[in-house]
Amino acid sequence: MVSLKTMPPEYRIRFLPIDRSVPAEAGENLLEIAMKAGVHINASCGGRGVCGKCRVRVSGGTLASSLHPSVGDNEYAAGVRLACASSINGDAEIEVPLESQVDRSVLRRSTVMSDVDAGAIDEALLGEYGREPLVERHDLEVPRPDIQDNVSDAARIARALASRSGCGESVVLPVRVMRGLATRLRDADWNITVNVAMSGQKEITAITGGRPDKAHYAIAVDIGTTTVAAQLLACDGGEGKRIVLASSSDYNRQISFGEDVISRIMYAGKRGGLRKLQEVVVSTVNLLIGELLGEAGVHRADISHVVVAGNTTMMHLFYGMEPKYIMLAPYTPLATAFPPIGCGEVGLETASHTHLFSVPGVSSYVGGDIVSGVALSGMTERDGVSLFMDIGTNGEIVLGNRQWLLCASCSAGPAFEGGGIQFGTRAAPGAIEKVRINPATLEPMILTVGRKKPLGICGSGLIDIVAELLLAGVIDRNGKFSAERKTKRVRDGSNGREYVLCFASETNIERDIVITEIDLDNILRTKAAVYAGCSVLLENGGLAFGDLDMVIIAGGFGHSIDVEKAIVMGLLPELPAERFRFMGNASLGGARISAVSRGFFEKAGRVARSMTNIELSNNAQFMDEFMAAMFLPHTDGRAFPETMKALENR
Amino acid sequence: MVSLKTMPPEYRIRFLPIDRSVPAEAGENLLEIAMKAGVHINASCGGRGVCGKCRVRVSGGTLASSLHPSVGDNEYAAGVRLACASSINGDAEIEVPLESQVDRSVLRRSTVMSDVDAGAIDEALLGEYGREPLVERHDLEVPRPDIQDNVSDAARIARALASRSGCGESVVLPVRVMRGLATRLRDADWNITVNVAMSGQKEITAITGGRPDKAHYAIAVDIGTTTVAAQLLACDGGEGKRIVLASSSDYNRQISFGEDVISRIMYAGKRGGLRKLQEVVVSTVNLLIGELLGEAGVHRADISHVVVAGNTTMMHLFYGMEPKYIMLAPYTPLATAFPPIGCGEVGLETASHTHLFSVPGVSSYVGGDIVSGVALSGMTERDGVSLFMDIGTNGEIVLGNRQWLLCASCSAGPAFEGGGIQFGTRAAPGAIEKVRINPATLEPMILTVGRKKPLGICGSGLIDIVAELLLAGVIDRNGKFSAERKTKRVRDGSNGREYVLCFASETNIERDIVITEIDLDNILRTKAAVYAGCSVLLENGGLAFGDLDMVIIAGGFGHSIDVEKAIVMGLLPELPAERFRFMGNASLGGARISAVSRGFFEKAGRVARSMTNIELSNNAQFMDEFMAAMFLPHTDGRAFPETMKALENR
Repeated sequence: MVSLKTMPPEYRIRFLPIDRSVPAEAGENLLEIAMKAGVHINASCGGRGVCGKCRVRVSGGTLASSLHPSVGDNEYAAGVRLACASSINGDAEIEVPLESQVDRSVLRRSTVMSDVDAGAIDEALLGEYGREPLVERHDLEVPRPDIQDNVSDAARIARALASRSGCGESVVLPVRVMRGLATRLRDADWNITVNVAMSGQKEITAITGGRPDKAHYAIAVDIGTTTVAAQLLACDGGEGKRIVLASSSDYNRQISFGEDVISRIMYAGKRGGLRKLQEVVVSTVNLLIGELLGEAGVHRADISHVVVAGNTTMMHLFYGMEPKYIMLAPYTPLATAFPPIGCGEVGLETASHTHLFSVPGVSSYVGGDIVSGVALSGMTERDGVSLFMDIGTNGEIVLGNRQWLLCASCSAGPAFEGGGIQFGTRAAPGAIEKVRINPATLEPMILTVGRKKPLGICGSGLIDIVAELLLAGVIDRNGKFSAERKTKRVRDGSNGREYVLCFASETNIERDIVITEIDLDNILRTKAAVYAGCSVLLENGGLAFGDLDMVIIAGGFGHSIDVEKAIVMGLLPELPAERFRFMGNASLGGARISAVSRGFFEKAGRVARSMTNIELSNNAQFMDEFMAAMFLPHTDGRAFPETMKALENR
Repeated sequence: MVSLKTMPPEYRIRFLPIDRSVPAEAGENLLEIAMKAGVHINASCGGRGVCGKCRVRVSGGTLASSLHPSVGDNEYAAGVRLACASSINGDAEIEVPLESQVDRSVLRRSTVMSDVDAGAIDEALLGEYGREPLVERHDLEVPRPDIQDNVSDAARIARALASRSGCGESVVLPVRVMRGLATRLRDADWNITVNVAMSGQKEITAITGGRPDKAHYAIAVDIGTTTVAAQLLACDGGEGKRIVLASSSDYNRQISFGEDVISRIMYAGKRGGLRKLQEVVVSTVNLLIGELLGEAGVHRADISHVVVAGNTTMMHLFYGMEPKYIMLAPYTPLATAFPPIGCGEVGLETASHTHLFSVPGVSSYVGGDIVSGVALSGMTERDGVSLFMDIGTNGEIVLGNRQWLLCASCSAGPAFEGGGIQFGTRAAPGAIEKVRINPATLEPMILTVGRKKPLGICGSGLIDIVAELLLAGVIDRNGKFSAERKTKRVRDGSNGREYVLCFASETNIERDIVITEIDLDNILRTKAAVYAGCSVLLENGGLAFGDLDMVIIAGGFGHSIDVEKAIVMGLLPELPAERFRFMGNASLGGARISAVSRGFFEKAGRVARSMTNIELSNNAQFMDEFMAAMFLPHTDGRAFPETMKALENR
């Protein structure tokens, strides 16, 4: 008997408030359909049903969902479901609540902020390293052949190039660039424009008819786990001429497959997962490239190169390399440096000649983003010792000066990006970013990003909360709620003791926003990991925190934190305020300067090679320091004299 | 109104005696259909309707053909047509006569012959330059990572490689080889086999699970205008171990598009022509590769590299480069050297890792085949001056010693390969290759290739004929038939005076085989061009023929010529017999040694760079020498004292 296959029925799923409808088949997972539809739903755990964050509401139609502890009975009755635990069994209308959405507006703000900071640094660095882009462009009049001198077209071009630039006759003219060249050369009457990739083996990437008045451009991209930021850069231009022509950023579309690198690595291990993650991050970059070109009115063909920087996992996924062993002991990446290739080889929508470079990294958890930032920071030109910190999902830290560099990654956990915190969220509109607690009334005062009704707490808010609860005596130095300070805001919740920041009526999510003892413990672990990492690096360098000349805080998160509060809670060392520097997106900055200055790019390579990576996992010294730091501000109060004074005076 | 397109009717064309049928549409050209069907029809002019050689016979069905002077009325009535001037208008059965076919058997013979010669040279060269293949293979046990040493997989491999080979840590590991590497490495338990391309920028071309007992191989290919010859080579192996494991050769399938480089260049200029020519030469090489692998029982994946050598036009077509300007003054090629690429980039059917190298050339008419041969000949290691000659369609000549090299190409014309000669043919079975003429009776004695019934005259036969006719007094020193020596074999034909070598009844083509005064003039021009070229090089070197230490004759043609007769007609200088050396397919030999010895390949590069090309076209000195050589053996009889003595004694 022949069994006839029938086409599965096709349903329509409508997402609100964005109002986008897509077809779907019975049994398809809702989170994956949202992803296909370009509807971003926050799924910290990558759809594993663990984080409980991908909350949606069925406002029409039907959905097959499994129960989950994070969705209460009343909520379930009201149509609340987890997208990752829901599959299609008919047409449906799905509301994506604010708390589950990702929003780009906050990203734009942070990019603009770092631009302002970057201008002066850029000028100084280009003065030092020269404005010689990674891909040079030369307008050449190639001497015409005659019977006395009829060496090949290729040799004539190499000769003309050698007389105009420092790249010598050893430059490679690849077969792909040669094809069609004889006609192109003669059609252009021997006046041509040649692009030459100047890093490593010098190579001609493009030869076109001469366009001596045309500028050429580069694109710098920082591929972060959460966000991708890109800038369009002018390669030509004299002193003082603008480098950054346009900036853009967006959430990394991989977010829908997991919020942190570990979730991504696990997803990449699934069938087709690596390919999918590669596609979506490349599509994110392609979107930004399109925006940059549109904004500046620049032609795609005039982009001579792209420089990317990112953490080691992001680079693996971007280049299509399996990241599995980054996650497994002994944490060996496939590679920390990727040789130049054509952009098309990874799927970037550029001209075929556009060359792709990346800033090299050091280890599985100290990537090219950190190298890029360290090179940009200037710490490797100083005699004094600096500490470079990038506190995101992992806290990456680098210690050193012009002579030596130590680096490490403290698996801090994603607390400061909202992970593992009941009402944690990224710094999106509505996120609580500043908190003050009245020491007398113990009532909070909160500020949110974009001054919207609150929907969660972002990293800087968490730092404020811990410091303020500690200073007000609501919690003790163990991070537990104190029995001494009584207030109606401290109560027993479903996850143990908690402090209510906002009551449901004040919020945008119709639930009380609280901070629990479990949250506090997670934050404590995070800050302890970062501080312990710094301590280990200092001990390895034979130094103490007091010896630090400069503490450089990189990353978007750095911008918004209150240094004073971060010291109180023991995340940052207690040092005079003037020793702290904020660099914003230093990874993008390093990629930017690399693109327009190969001297700087080469320096970044030297920085990567000269960093000594200290592995902190299973490191006994780190465990000791970590335990010592699991106290507010620290077990050793002598390192925080001013904070201790304030605590004694409370 | 909408005009409806109808499908053109499809006809079947059957070729005999090979008995192969193919579909064809009305209006399609018969020569092109034969090509598609893999039926080789001799078409010297590339289907331009000039040479009249692509004779076929319609033995059934119908064909639309235009008239051509080379097909007589009786022949036309008997169904004889020119394939290039015929198009399809119905089903047809086509007989391809012997004279129009190309036959591989003679090629196999010549390849075998040069193998025998090559053994001793190979051993000597490998002793001098070392047996270090262009792509090295290393079996590595990569140290496993642990928490103290967890640098990336890529860095571990580079480190392990540096400790085992001379390639250092600077070797490039391309992104395409990295993909999937982490799993492969661990599946193989860190025992891997790495292929490293050692020329130019060192690059890893493949990493596989370790196979320490497996040998690896290379393929050398000589891409000639007429024939393509290839050998399978063992890369590993100690002293005295066999290098050549299998040899094969075939006619270059481009033959159907024109017999000489000029016809090919013209065809390449047609719409789609370049692509077609590239496809067919690559398919020829692919056929040979398949044969070599089958014969030796070697797996495709174990071929680590391919080295090709060929004239500049052949290299342009093989790499897909427009050859147009090779043909037009001032004869500027697009390139004379092509950087290493993956074989797949030109369409070779090899494993994706197999790397392609080519021996560099000098100019439009002195290509990598000549450089390959000169490097192999040893002339660049000698103090004495040698003259290297490769007489094919063009006579390429190189003069020099360890200190200097001059080269030139004399556009000799294709007479010695059968072109421009009424009954000229390549050295296929049935070609007249040796001729003696009885001085008393003036009757000829002939020998054919394979001792078949004669169907034409090949190059060595033509040399014999001219020398013998001269010595017998049938022709004078101008190459004209003498009125003094009467014989029935000299008569007036449709192309002027002619000498009958075979009457129709003795031949396989049912026509008299003759040599005409026009033929004689063509041969005279050819030999004069070669001799004049040599004279110009010698003058530029301040030398005379008598100063030559060695005359090296390369190419398949060299094997079969009778030096004594070639001296009598003035093609070769009158020097003692022991100064002449025959090298057979020196181009293939140089490619072969390059494949297994990168020291030799680098030497070939130095040879190419050190050759000074003398352009002979529009060269006044050359024209003077050419006119002086348009005499048998030469205007200046003092250069040929022995020949002059023989002529006086006749």
